[in-house]
Amino acid sequence: MIYERVALIGLGLIAGSIALAAKRRGLAEEIVGTARTAQTRETALRIGLVDQVFATPAEAVAGVDLVILCVPVGAMADVAAEIGPHLKPGCVVSDVGSVKQAVIDAVAPHLPAGTVFVPAHPLAGTEHSGPESGFATLFDNRFCILTPPEDTAPQDVARYRGFWEGMGARVEEMDAEHHDRVLAVTSHVPHLIAYTMVGVADDLRRVTNSEVIKFSAAGFRDFTRIAASDPTMWRDVFLNNEAATLEILGRFTEELFTLQRAIRKGDGDLLFDHFTRTRAIRRGILDAGQDTDAPDFGRKRND
Amino acid sequence: MIYERVALIGLGLIAGSIALAAKRRGLAEEIVGTARTAQTRETALRIGLVDQVFATPAEAVAGVDLVILCVPVGAMADVAAEIGPHLKPGCVVSDVGSVKQAVIDAVAPHLPAGTVFVPAHPLAGTEHSGPESGFATLFDNRFCILTPPEDTAPQDVARYRGFWEGMGARVEEMDAEHHDRVLAVTSHVPHLIAYTMVGVADDLRRVTNSEVIKFSAAGFRDFTRIAASDPTMWRDVFLNNEAATLEILGRFTEELFTLQRAIRKGDGDLLFDHFTRTRAIRRGILDAGQDTDAPDFGRKRND
Repeated sequence: MIYERVALIGLGLIAGSIALAAKRRGLAEEIVGTARTAQTRETALRIGLVDQVFATPAEAVAGVDLVILCVPVGAMADVAAEIGPHLKPGCVVSDVGSVKQAVIDAVAPHLPAGTVFVPAHPLAGTEHSGPESGFATLFDNRFCILTPPEDTAPQDVARYRGFWEGMGARVEEMDAEHHDRVLAVTSHVPHLIAYTMVGVADDLRRVTNSEVIKFSAAGFRDFTRIAASDPTMWRDVFLNNEAATLEILGRFTEELFTLQRAIRKGDGDLLFDHFTRTRAIRRGILDAGQDTDAPDFGRKRND
Repeated sequence: MIYERVALIGLGLIAGSIALAAKRRGLAEEIVGTARTAQTRETALRIGLVDQVFATPAEAVAGVDLVILCVPVGAMADVAAEIGPHLKPGCVVSDVGSVKQAVIDAVAPHLPAGTVFVPAHPLAGTEHSGPESGFATLFDNRFCILTPPEDTAPQDVARYRGFWEGMGARVEEMDAEHHDRVLAVTSHVPHLIAYTMVGVADDLRRVTNSEVIKFSAAGFRDFTRIAASDPTMWRDVFLNNEAATLEILGRFTEELFTLQRAIRKGDGDLLFDHFTRTRAIRRGILDAGQDTDAPDFGRKRND
């Protein structure tokens, strides 16, 4: 047991998976939670995600040792303001937001002296959402990035690191700004691009009698999966990681126009060289153990 | 048995899978092949993909009932010119190219009277290439689109359709121009975008000490898989489906700029509405049976 009583604010995919993963390894004595809608709270209690639910964040955090904010990034400030006065001294506050500097700016001002803030971002998820989409193995061998402010006591960070390692994650630490830039490249802009492409296809579908869906080949199917992710979460990601997202988008557009121009001019060498270079980065990901080399012919996953 | 003797020109992923799928169901009495390099020919013979290999396409097609061109789109014209004089009367010629109008323009002029041309495009593949990457179930339940010229005899089309259905595919027919437009949306532009994004990430990786690879979250991992596809094949796709690709790219850029502007202006409603709309198209693909609803948390595939 690492924390006696843990409160989860928000009870979606990530919170549900935290509850199940923490219970699996006995990392918490008691896990309580709250969610905005009564229906979500009832579901979470019924399926045994949490031991107890409360109607408000203020009630949920009373007497707990660890609070994890599992709400969209845009809702963090309000929740922090509400729970601040109810946190017990020594309580660790964390979150699971996909951007970190904006969350620190939103949450830190509301936390009373004597509490500890350790922002976190588990790099895990699926395109599903809601309390019933959580599962105990979601974090196994996935990275969880901690971005603790410089004045956080090392032993508090180490303890929270142990909580995530206990749930199966590989924990890394970096500063929030660096996190936001790396994630803009590896996650945020790829999501925006997938959302864009699927929108274009949807427009065309309306004039081509659904064939776009019917003949979606492997590449596009992956895009639609990405673009099926939670709209609220992703709206908040882009609004709160604006600078890094726009910078990477600028680079992306520049590169896209280079390839587009090569297609228009029939410059096969440029295309071939670019496509050869990108093949190598895939090899790097396989070597890093973050995917498997098994052929994906676009039908079954995890079954 | 549908064809007595079949010749495969090119012995990569698709040809290898055709050989294995056709043998599995006894669709051909004998399957022969040729490939550009002696190494590929030897491998194909050694692992039993084909019954016999020949050093040149001209030798391979002698006396066969069906020839399938499994070479990159840009190589089709030369191969067609070489085999034309050696085809026996009544021989069916097909291909597996990802674009169809350009292949028709390249191949048809070289085919002698009395032969039958039925262009085809199986919507199946993996990011792997070479003779050893083929497998017998690649086409199971995948679409194969035939784009026969208008003057092709219906019974010849029906017979070739039976060959693909025998290999497990769902066969559709449409005209070549329509095919090229639909595939530009569902496959060609998504691939170009993935290639672009992975190139951007690779540039940044060089300044961020490989963290881009280390922390590649689910979205980016899918992109790298797509961008690891065969460079020659994809160069030829873009050079030979230029018009449709550039048109769809124009729409993509327009839509991307709209979302980019919304991020810059903080227009959360526009982002939310767009992301909600794209979620629906995913549902359409699931309903069409072209993917499963199993959560993909980005680790294992097909195992």
